[in-house]
Amino acid sequence: MKTIVDINCDMGESFGVYRIGRDKEVIQYITSANIACGFHASDPNIMEETLRLCRKYRVMAGAHPGYPDLLGFGRRNLDVSLPELINYVIYQVGALQGFSSFLGMRLQHMKMHGALYNNLVTREEFFLDIITAVKKAFGDLIFFTLATQRTADFKKICLQRGLRLALEAFPDRNYTDEGELLSREHKEAVLKNPDIIAERAVRMVKDQGIESVKGRWIDLNVDTLCIHGDNLESIEAAKKMQAAFKREGIKVCPVAEFL
Amino acid sequence: MKTIVDINCDMGESFGVYRIGRDKEVIQYITSANIACGFHASDPNIMEETLRLCRKYRVMAGAHPGYPDLLGFGRRNLDVSLPELINYVIYQVGALQGFSSFLGMRLQHMKMHGALYNNLVTREEFFLDIITAVKKAFGDLIFFTLATQRTADFKKICLQRGLRLALEAFPDRNYTDEGELLSREHKEAVLKNPDIIAERAVRMVKDQGIESVKGRWIDLNVDTLCIHGDNLESIEAAKKMQAAFKREGIKVCPVAEFL
Amino acid sequence: MKTIVDINCDMGESFGVYRIGRDKEVIQYITSANIACGFHASDPNIMEETLRLCRKYRVMAGAHPGYPDLLGFGRRNLDVSLPELINYVIYQVGALQGFSSFLGMRLQHMKMHGALYNNLVTREEFFLDIITAVKKAFGDLIFFTLATQRTADFKKICLQRGLRLALEAFPDRNYTDEGELLSREHKEAVLKNPDIIAERAVRMVKDQGIESVKGRWIDLNVDTLCIHGDNLESIEAAKKMQAAFKREGIKVCPVAEFL
Amino acid sequence: MKTIVDINCDMGESFGVYRIGRDKEVIQYITSANIACGFHASDPNIMEETLRLCRKYRVMAGAHPGYPDLLGFGRRNLDVSLPELINYVIYQVGALQGFSSFLGMRLQHMKMHGALYNNLVTREEFFLDIITAVKKAFGDLIFFTLATQRTADFKKICLQRGLRLALEAFPDRNYTDEGELLSREHKEAVLKNPDIIAERAVRMVKDQGIESVKGRWIDLNVDTLCIHGDNLESIEAAKKMQAAFKREGIKVCPVAEFL
Repeated sequence: MKTIVDINCDMGESFGVYRIGRDKEVIQYITSANIACGFHASDPNIMEETLRLCRKYRVMAGAHPGYPDLLGFGRRNLDVSLPELINYVIYQVGALQGFSSFLGMRLQHMKMHGALYNNLVTREEFFLDIITAVKKAFGDLIFFTLATQRTADFKKICLQRGLRLALEAFPDRNYTDEGELLSREHKEAVLKNPDIIAERAVRMVKDQGIESVKGRWIDLNVDTLCIHGDNLESIEAAKKMQAAFKREGIKVCPVAEFL
Repeated sequence: MKTIVDINCDMGESFGVYRIGRDKEVIQYITSANIACGFHASDPNIMEETLRLCRKYRVMAGAHPGYPDLLGFGRRNLDVSLPELINYVIYQVGALQGFSSFLGMRLQHMKMHGALYNNLVTREEFFLDIITAVKKAFGDLIFFTLATQRTADFKKICLQRGLRLALEAFPDRNYTDEGELLSREHKEAVLKNPDIIAERAVRMVKDQGIESVKGRWIDLNVDTLCIHGDNLESIEAAKKMQAAFKREGIKVCPVAEFL
Repeated sequence: MKTIVDINCDMGESFGVYRIGRDKEVIQYITSANIACGFHASDPNIMEETLRLCRKYRVMAGAHPGYPDLLGFGRRNLDVSLPELINYVIYQVGALQGFSSFLGMRLQHMKMHGALYNNLVTREEFFLDIITAVKKAFGDLIFFTLATQRTADFKKICLQRGLRLALEAFPDRNYTDEGELLSREHKEAVLKNPDIIAERAVRMVKDQGIESVKGRWIDLNVDTLCIHGDNLESIEAAKKMQAAFKREGIKVCPVAEFL
Repeated sequence: MKTIVDINCDMGESFGVYRIGRDKEVIQYITSANIACGFHASDPNIMEETLRLCRKYRVMAGAHPGYPDLLGFGRRNLDVSLPELINYVIYQVGALQGFSSFLGMRLQHMKMHGALYNNLVTREEFFLDIITAVKKAFGDLIFFTLATQRTADFKKICLQRGLRLALEAFPDRNYTDEGELLSREHKEAVLKNPDIIAERAVRMVKDQGIESVKGRWIDLNVDTLCIHGDNLESIEAAKKMQAAFKREGIKVCPVAEFL
């Protein structure tokens, strides 16, 4: 039975005058923040502001690179070659790293965004090449990816190469029998009830798994839970989750402290 | 009589399929390269490629940030507030720094581009705030600015604060009696004859000054000469300049070695 | 005493996933919509959606071009030459015109956005060249600009050249003794009280003027009132304004019907 | 035996200070110009300038919309939904149409660019929906697509719906036995010899077909030939082609004159 977990959330996705996400609320319930880097969302001002927010709440900051597609918020697949993709990622992480050095902070991790995230979950060789390059440029960051049967093995392979992976699960998402996220095309894809989300979060940590939408048990190697901060319900769920963890004796802390 | 100088050139200003500048030729005649960072020109692939070129030719690399205006190539003034400007600069230098770490290189300097460069020559307090922030984020870079009467004093003020300035002159540009660059609106603004450019370069270094377009002597505190690499004549001028420096016993080396 | 007026509001300023403005509410209280065209805000989907909204509520649509500066929401001055500016405007109006033809609608007017709007209020020769070009490309649109002493005269000059201007006033803004908008740097610049805004709107129409912030009477040649739709108070003010106009027998209709 | 043909070329693909293509040379050898619209290439100034060039050389102008990916020059696939794609296309054609109205010209045709072009060759239902929307917005344009077995049939279907298709062949490209363009991954994909290209062009028009790279005869329903204008060889090939057409009594004129 595991009794420690990290909670992460995408943050700093505003752009210019456009505001998105309840960053100032949700940051109170998380330990790791994934900060957009100006390609799919964010801009230099937002990045600096979001890092300051992390510093204030003692939340660990990570880079959240995406495709260069502000119009599509990085949610659309773009056919980018691997060498170019590596450069896109280095550019974005470098830009965030600049602000983190400026503020006397350090980046803890990197998590891909949107279509790039989904793409790389199944293209392990691409993912490996990218994180190898990122480690070469920025040192020993922790790399977040989806907790699945395959990535549990992949995590070990990476470790042998000196690359630390953190596997993440989604308490507010239903899973298929194969242990994958149920596509958003299904109406049961996303759970809304804060109590149920909190309860699922507890099981994901303690039992390291969850029941699929059809009731089959799925093993998940969970290091970090991804929550959302875009609406009132998600904030409520975050609050309930924290209360449940306290009740159950689960310690919430940045992934760097236990990975 | 001074016998040492740095030669710098703007590089890596291509974008996507668009190619600009004869980088591979001009790099053979310079010691410091100002590399665009994706706002007014360049992209992640070009940045990586240009740094590799610097490494191959043992040329020192510097960041060349500009306004976020690819359409105008950073040559148009944009009213950006100081706090935002600082963030724009940190973002760009950070992105380049990411590639330079990836390639095992170090940035030597920073030079502003286009309208931002011109703007900051006369707004010393802005410039000071920006370079103070850049030093905080990226350490002890050398900051390039135009060699004028005023900046010679400003250089000393900066030094007292631990900020190293390198002053640059333009051998292919005519100067006013006030020691400023003659505006491009005048037809004598830019010199084309390679021999004359080379001869002026020698005087700028040895005599630390040049005659204005009207024949008045202008003192210039010259650390580095800015040359161009966009056309055949500029490459020819660079060649001639190197030959003249050899003849005159002027050593050409990166500014970091003697500043 | 005038008893007819148009009410206009900036709309369609969302971008991608980013939502801004309470378009669906405020559209119920206006007769002319200024629709962003993708340079400072908006995108192709938002433009089409906003035109549909106009059609549904029988609100006249107009183009709202701005500087190519999404990051600054078109609020920052950008030094663009006149020939380029004309092309930027034609591009944007053309794009919106495409959607309006697609939906079987016609554009009624054009109003500049943000820094471009402010710039052109005082540069009449630029404004004249731009609207002459727009008329040549798109036919007899009505051109909105700020109602001031000067523009009242300018309106006549334009009319002699076959160009229709509509002058606009801002009921929620304070004016200087010179009849200009009090800069937003002053804390009294923007009025918030819906009742006072509605009362000022009535006076602006009936008396064709308003008292300056210091109490001096300012003549204003008012064809259209600009209101805002970004927050609850502005919607409330719009409601109150409509009620006041009804009470006072002021007819609200698109500017094309009476200019 | 057919003795009439149109020659088209992509033009106006420069951007800001970046120049690409020998537009002023190649325009002398073509009858239809496909003009980029600011998404994958071009900007408002280039669009206006390119239309002026068309007017000067009496070349018919058409819109050349692409994906919103300047960084990738529209050559990379981007997963855009059909409704969004329609809006992207209307936006671009509308913008070009604005300039063409401004200059007193009319658009003759539309041809998709790069990855969007390739995508739509095989997704006929998408293509049909897009061109139906474009016709609704801009009237009876001619739509260019690749001449293949399938598109020959598709052309008839479109005609029944009042939509005119023009099929194009590439004299400088090799074809597979299936009548498709040999992928650029093969080294024989692109032909360079101007004499051979001119000879193939003649056969494509007179015999309405060409031999595949393996020697099999391919029927092609050719209305227009696509040539290139990016390098000296392509200009040379265009010259040779025109000479060969003259010799063979093939008339070269805009597709609108004979379709």
